[in-house]
Amino acid sequence: MSDITTTRPAIRNGVDTAALFATLDAIKGDPEIAKFQFRASNRWIAGTHSQSTMDGFFGAKQEMNHATAYVAEADHPAVLVGADNGPTPTEYLLHALAACLTAGVANIAAVRGVNLTEVTSTVEGDIDLLGILGLSKDVRNGYQQIKVTFNVKGDDPDKLRQVVEQSRQRSAVYDVLTNGVPVSIDVVTG
Amino acid sequence: MSDITTTRPAIRNGVDTAALFATLDAIKGDPEIAKFQFRASNRWIAGTHSQSTMDGFFGAKQEMNHATAYVAEADHPAVLVGADNGPTPTEYLLHALAACLTAGVANIAAVRGVNLTEVTSTVEGDIDLLGILGLSKDVRNGYQQIKVTFNVKGDDPDKLRQVVEQSRQRSAVYDVLTNGVPVSIDVVTG
Repeated sequence: MSDITTTRPAIRNGVDTAALFATLDAIKGDPEIAKFQFRASNRWIAGTHSQSTMDGFFGAKQEMNHATAYVAEADHPAVLVGADNGPTPTEYLLHALAACLTAGVANIAAVRGVNLTEVTSTVEGDIDLLGILGLSKDVRNGYQQIKVTFNVKGDDPDKLRQVVEQSRQRSAVYDVLTNGVPVSIDVVTG
Repeated sequence: MSDITTTRPAIRNGVDTAALFATLDAIKGDPEIAKFQFRASNRWIAGTHSQSTMDGFFGAKQEMNHATAYVAEADHPAVLVGADNGPTPTEYLLHALAACLTAGVANIAAVRGVNLTEVTSTVEGDIDLLGILGLSKDVRNGYQQIKVTFNVKGDDPDKLRQVVEQSRQRSAVYDVLTNGVPVSIDVVTG
């Protein structure tokens, strides 16, 4: 029956595509909805150990909150004279990249009617600590390169590759990591 | 007694400065020790929800592991058609920046003999979603700017400011976010 074969499910890959299209329409009607500000509040604990809370953010023209206040630990490992109470700050960059690209893959595949069964990825970042330790002026402080490897299972392999490529082209974290962003730092003492 | 006033404590701000100097000496003697690779393994769960594990890394000329395998969730909030099972990927960038700068502040202050009593920071990132939603070619995908505000308490305010500035100059995450890094993406399907 043609009315069945032409009906697209509203939920695909766990993505509510009807809500996604409705959100796009709402933003087209009022671009102010799209202006967001995300935030993290960090508190030093001891040594290289600190803890961030991510809760409130601004978006859709109002102050909002996450379902719960999320907390993330960070520390340096023992080999770098930390207490290893959490991942290193630099590892969170890799997590952020994988998570952003993966969310995009799920959304884009859903909108295109492409079914996913499994998406995994590994992210590797190479860093030479001679930079941050001040032992060489020829070595940068941060990662020298980051390599992402996706393993995607589902519909047609060509479509899956195109979905990953489109996610790369629309990823907030990929953009920030590859192109950089202006960062200002203010200090209050006392 | 002069032998007391000239003795510097090995632990300051929770940082084992003796171990830190010993590590620096070891790296000066063999720069290969400084070559690290950090990693994250991500697994898609449903919709925009995914989970990363950070455990193994390479450094000091050997494969190493964290004290435990750290897991971090990421998701989009409900207003962005996610299930809000964790912070957004972009919020993790803010956490990474705060945590990296804060770890540097603690280490640098310790090495300089500057005592800290409290270090907090807030990080704000402004993003216009017209970019990632493909609704404007004039808007970038990522943050347009990031603002960090540190509140540092301890010894002399001028020294505290200098410590924050030195941390900025030696921060891996600040370098990556402001200058960008090459990212390659490979895709395996099937």
